[in-house]
Amino acid sequence: MKRKWFGGALAFLALMAFPATVFADDGPTNVQLQAGLNTFFVFMAAMLVFFMQAGFALLEAGSVRMKNAGHIAGKTVLTLGISIIVFWAFGFGLGFGNGNSLFGTTGFFMTGDSMAKAFDALSASDVSLSVKFLFQLSFAAVSLAIACGGMAERAKLSVYIVFGALFMIVIYPVVAHWVWGGGWLGQLGMQDFAGSTVVHLTGATAALVITYMLKPRLGKYNKDGKPNSIPGHNQVLSVLGVFILWIGWFGFNPGSTLSAMMDGFFGYVALTTNIAVAAGAIAALLISWAVFGKADIPSMLNGVLAALVAITGSCAFVDAWAAVVIGAVAGIVTFFTAQWFERAGIDDPIYAFSVHGIAGIWGAISTGLFATPKLVETTGVGKPGLFYGGGLEQLGVQLLGVLGAFVFVFAISFIIIGLMKVTMGIRVSEEEEMLGLDISEHGTYGYPEQMKLIADAAAVKPSPELSAVKPAGAGEAFN
Amino acid sequence: MKRKWFGGALAFLALMAFPATVFADDGPTNVQLQAGLNTFFVFMAAMLVFFMQAGFALLEAGSVRMKNAGHIAGKTVLTLGISIIVFWAFGFGLGFGNGNSLFGTTGFFMTGDSMAKAFDALSASDVSLSVKFLFQLSFAAVSLAIACGGMAERAKLSVYIVFGALFMIVIYPVVAHWVWGGGWLGQLGMQDFAGSTVVHLTGATAALVITYMLKPRLGKYNKDGKPNSIPGHNQVLSVLGVFILWIGWFGFNPGSTLSAMMDGFFGYVALTTNIAVAAGAIAALLISWAVFGKADIPSMLNGVLAALVAITGSCAFVDAWAAVVIGAVAGIVTFFTAQWFERAGIDDPIYAFSVHGIAGIWGAISTGLFATPKLVETTGVGKPGLFYGGGLEQLGVQLLGVLGAFVFVFAISFIIIGLMKVTMGIRVSEEEEMLGLDISEHGTYGYPEQMKLIADAAAVKPSPELSAVKPAGAGEAFN
Amino acid sequence: MKRKWFGGALAFLALMAFPATVFADDGPTNVQLQAGLNTFFVFMAAMLVFFMQAGFALLEAGSVRMKNAGHIAGKTVLTLGISIIVFWAFGFGLGFGNGNSLFGTTGFFMTGDSMAKAFDALSASDVSLSVKFLFQLSFAAVSLAIACGGMAERAKLSVYIVFGALFMIVIYPVVAHWVWGGGWLGQLGMQDFAGSTVVHLTGATAALVITYMLKPRLGKYNKDGKPNSIPGHNQVLSVLGVFILWIGWFGFNPGSTLSAMMDGFFGYVALTTNIAVAAGAIAALLISWAVFGKADIPSMLNGVLAALVAITGSCAFVDAWAAVVIGAVAGIVTFFTAQWFERAGIDDPIYAFSVHGIAGIWGAISTGLFATPKLVETTGVGKPGLFYGGGLEQLGVQLLGVLGAFVFVFAISFIIIGLMKVTMGIRVSEEEEMLGLDISEHGTYGYPEQMKLIADAAAVKPSPELSAVKPAGAGEAFN
Repeated sequence: MKRKWFGGALAFLALMAFPATVFADDGPTNVQLQAGLNTFFVFMAAMLVFFMQAGFALLEAGSVRMKNAGHIAGKTVLTLGISIIVFWAFGFGLGFGNGNSLFGTTGFFMTGDSMAKAFDALSASDVSLSVKFLFQLSFAAVSLAIACGGMAERAKLSVYIVFGALFMIVIYPVVAHWVWGGGWLGQLGMQDFAGSTVVHLTGATAALVITYMLKPRLGKYNKDGKPNSIPGHNQVLSVLGVFILWIGWFGFNPGSTLSAMMDGFFGYVALTTNIAVAAGAIAALLISWAVFGKADIPSMLNGVLAALVAITGSCAFVDAWAAVVIGAVAGIVTFFTAQWFERAGIDDPIYAFSVHGIAGIWGAISTGLFATPKLVETTGVGKPGLFYGGGLEQLGVQLLGVLGAFVFVFAISFIIIGLMKVTMGIRVSEEEEMLGLDISEHGTYGYPEQMKLIADAAAVKPSPELSAVKPAGAGEAFN
Repeated sequence: MKRKWFGGALAFLALMAFPATVFADDGPTNVQLQAGLNTFFVFMAAMLVFFMQAGFALLEAGSVRMKNAGHIAGKTVLTLGISIIVFWAFGFGLGFGNGNSLFGTTGFFMTGDSMAKAFDALSASDVSLSVKFLFQLSFAAVSLAIACGGMAERAKLSVYIVFGALFMIVIYPVVAHWVWGGGWLGQLGMQDFAGSTVVHLTGATAALVITYMLKPRLGKYNKDGKPNSIPGHNQVLSVLGVFILWIGWFGFNPGSTLSAMMDGFFGYVALTTNIAVAAGAIAALLISWAVFGKADIPSMLNGVLAALVAITGSCAFVDAWAAVVIGAVAGIVTFFTAQWFERAGIDDPIYAFSVHGIAGIWGAISTGLFATPKLVETTGVGKPGLFYGGGLEQLGVQLLGVLGAFVFVFAISFIIIGLMKVTMGIRVSEEEEMLGLDISEHGTYGYPEQMKLIADAAAVKPSPELSAVKPAGAGEAFN
Repeated sequence: MKRKWFGGALAFLALMAFPATVFADDGPTNVQLQAGLNTFFVFMAAMLVFFMQAGFALLEAGSVRMKNAGHIAGKTVLTLGISIIVFWAFGFGLGFGNGNSLFGTTGFFMTGDSMAKAFDALSASDVSLSVKFLFQLSFAAVSLAIACGGMAERAKLSVYIVFGALFMIVIYPVVAHWVWGGGWLGQLGMQDFAGSTVVHLTGATAALVITYMLKPRLGKYNKDGKPNSIPGHNQVLSVLGVFILWIGWFGFNPGSTLSAMMDGFFGYVALTTNIAVAAGAIAALLISWAVFGKADIPSMLNGVLAALVAITGSCAFVDAWAAVVIGAVAGIVTFFTAQWFERAGIDDPIYAFSVHGIAGIWGAISTGLFATPKLVETTGVGKPGLFYGGGLEQLGVQLLGVLGAFVFVFAISFIIIGLMKVTMGIRVSEEEEMLGLDISEHGTYGYPEQMKLIADAAAVKPSPELSAVKPAGAGEAFN
């Protein structure tokens, strides 16, 4: 039975497309066409969300010093690899499988002929199960990337591996199940369209625990406890990262409609998303200009991301003018909370909690304020917000959801990281930190030629302004 | 009324997909399926075009010196933010709303239940209005990015904000209305498929005015008025930017069919586009090799972009062999005009006018020469070109369109920039320019560790070849 | 006949969508809708695969030294340009045109009204011919990019041009025709879903010939023949390149189904692909950790790519668990073979043969082991593998295909490169190599400011560890 490849593949195509009950020259049925279109739509959305991993790698690499850049970019590849395997094996079933109101108990490893019946929470969509899995996986991986942001410049590589695997089993899937998998928050009518709470607050809360337990980077605070600025080494990479994340968010939010039909509703979701992010970018830049006297680029980038995070939960529930408000408030609040956390002694190098946590909470609350009756009817979730005559009921549900997710993730992360701290240790040594994690964790610099220049320059003439902020010693050259 | 999220969303999906007049198990109608497919198609095209902003950020960052790299990448985010808000509020209505033959007067802020009736010029397409907006917005933002290219390395940040907002109100939407929004050039039958004139020439003409009124960068010309080379700091970033722009153009040109149906006509548009750009890349590289004695990479990158600009207007009107000619001529002409402008004292650091203006004019003219009768019938716009028996009529319309757009944009830009120059000032001080715009406009370097090396090296040993081309002084270290 | 543009375009759309035999308000037929959907699907897949060129540019640029980075990024643009023109003119017809069992003889330049009849091997798919061309072109360009990897850091620019054009005529199209274009390997039932053999092994075998005939880079081996490490200059760029390649592969593999219908089969292909790559990343990192004592990032990146290469051929034939095995084995085998080649005196700077050749062979073999009866039936190609009761028959076909492709590509490449070596020369001079190819081939550095620092540093203090690995001389500063 020797056949030509293309002929064979297309013979199969014809078989699928023209079932016996339909005349062959009529092509597929309309239901089949819609399923094909929606599956392709969600697949492209998943691709955009996967591409966000490149955005995180660049944003983080640009936001750290040269000596840690290879490490932080490389670990993003590693954590994505871990995400995929563990979410396939356990996370998808725990999050979206049938089970109780806390977690799912079916669908592990996606094997068995009855897979289609293992995911009731996803069964109303006509998208193929493989693509549903890829889409949900891409969200889970974003949440982990956010969590890992709290580890920057001082955590051991092994921490990413162990915590990453556990996050994909006992943290993210549980919160996802609560809201999207048939769990108690979904039953209460919590509105979280694409995951301000499920994805962003979850990842950010884990990041907060991690950054708190890792303690600040060497040299971050002076003797009086005042923070020193440790600027990232490459704003161009950070900007590129933010653009990639921005584009990726067009998979995140519009893709969460799970359909290219619905009279183009996904386009409306993209519209509110884009308006919010513009407002966030401008608001954050202007507030930094007013406060610092200079238009600060990292603050603007945080404003972009904060607005995206906030509109993630509310994009399908609010009017365009409300999107402006949600984005601008997110940009401004994140600007001030980022500084407040820094002054309070929490050294969060990538601003994971300010950007994804605070803005995530604001995004969750915002639907309780701005959800319109018409869009609530469209999405079929919850009730209108306070400003649209809905009273405090939806706001209460949203606050309960935020509180529930925060407390759960904080507690579990605290236990996991605490156990890791006393058993395997979570932070590199002082000398390793000064040398940089590229060397300590991987044995080579990410930028070998440039780091050699820095070493040579230090050998010729020590740099006084930098040595002030850290202990003198062998690693001095490698600030 | 507590419902599960996915159930709710899909209940809505079912509602949309199965209207009362159709049996539920027949799924959506064919008209609805086509609308869903086309809306998704144009949405993905818009995503590719939005991604071009990352391409511009990288191309520009790579083409300037290290001291200005963070600034120029960051301002791209800012101008995109401005574009979105202003185009949503005013630009889309002015450009595509119903009105007169000069501009539109309906559809501002996209609010009101009668929105669908406010955009007659777009009403023949079955794509959803939100996605039409996003697509047109992405084009407008490209035009502004081109205009901003003329400001590189010496304009104040505030200039981007003020000019960007005004460009999105009184410049781009007007030209767009003339050709695509029901205005006088469209009525004359001007052929500009995806915007050689509307997008590229418009942006480039504004860039020409800006770069002329800003005057050359410090050190660009020596005492005899001969130009010095100021190479960009990172060709890898520039190459990546060009690849992203190239990919983005596959949204720009094929997406302008507004449909994935039409027997795959968008694929033909992609084919002519890709053949033209290949010809432009090779032609520009070879001509630089012949003239300079070396195969110049920036010249090749300009050739890629020039070919893309030229084929933008003609991609749907010409045969594949003509695409080779159009691309190759664009690459060669841009190479020579770039040098001619430089020698003439116009310091256009990103080559905005050569690449987008000259090639934009060539692209507009090219349909007057190469438009085939068959493709003119397919697109339903204008008449065949000179080489296909169409005589001079279409060529005349094309030249009139180019002239009209150029004169209008030049005049309005001149007035705006002139007023800004005498009121707020448009250029940073000499000292600020020498320090770099990262510091002067934003307070931190984009590359703090690398700039410290440059400063340290200058402190040890001044670099003689660089100090020759600019005034001595405090900023000498920061060439 | 003056018409408005949008009206005109949509008039055409209506004409296409509503042929006379159908009532206009029924919209397009289901067959037309399916063709539109599939054409759009393959178009987006082609876009993802084209984007892989940016991935190769970054991976290669990050993997070489600073003095060669602009060159290697820029030549990627050049080789893509050459690919497009030559594949349009000759390659597509030779590969997929009707002909004999060795190559095609129709369809050159894609001109003539009978084009649709010139490509029988592709005729079962309802995707438009232009998009089929773009998709196949994007694959061919990937194969050439792999081949060019073997030239890094020492080949003349002219070699890329001459070899690139010939590769697109006499090498790639022939192998593609054998397997996918109706040739003898396809007739034997060889399973190569997306090109482990056709694309990757072909490119890698050419790279092996090239890297062998170019001889190692200066300083790669010491006097005893032991290899020195020449680390790439920028791991962040390499990581970004790998992420782009990873995303691009979701066009490569799922796109090769040529349909968004088929009950979402493309999603299953994406699933096995993603699981394999995760396994490859983790396996390669862990094995490098075990062997080197450090978790080596370049090894992990090679593991990602090797797993992608291996699963390329088998993604549509194997279960998810087998994808884990295929990916992990690819990551580990590539790790060891990369070192073995290096010790054996073959200096392959981008690991082109280890990653794309060895893993390509493993991928081809893997379907002979793991192909399941169900998926063989689905795809309609070949027979089940050894572990599924298929015996040795399919394994034999796979081995024959690998051997045939390897011998053919090796021989032709050897002849071409050999002739080029004796006529035009293939390697730059020693002095040029020490200065770097940015200067020797293009006349400017890709990183002018950073290279100046390196030169200044060398002038102050020669760097002893680097000068040990290369001859002393004028180029010493530019290691």
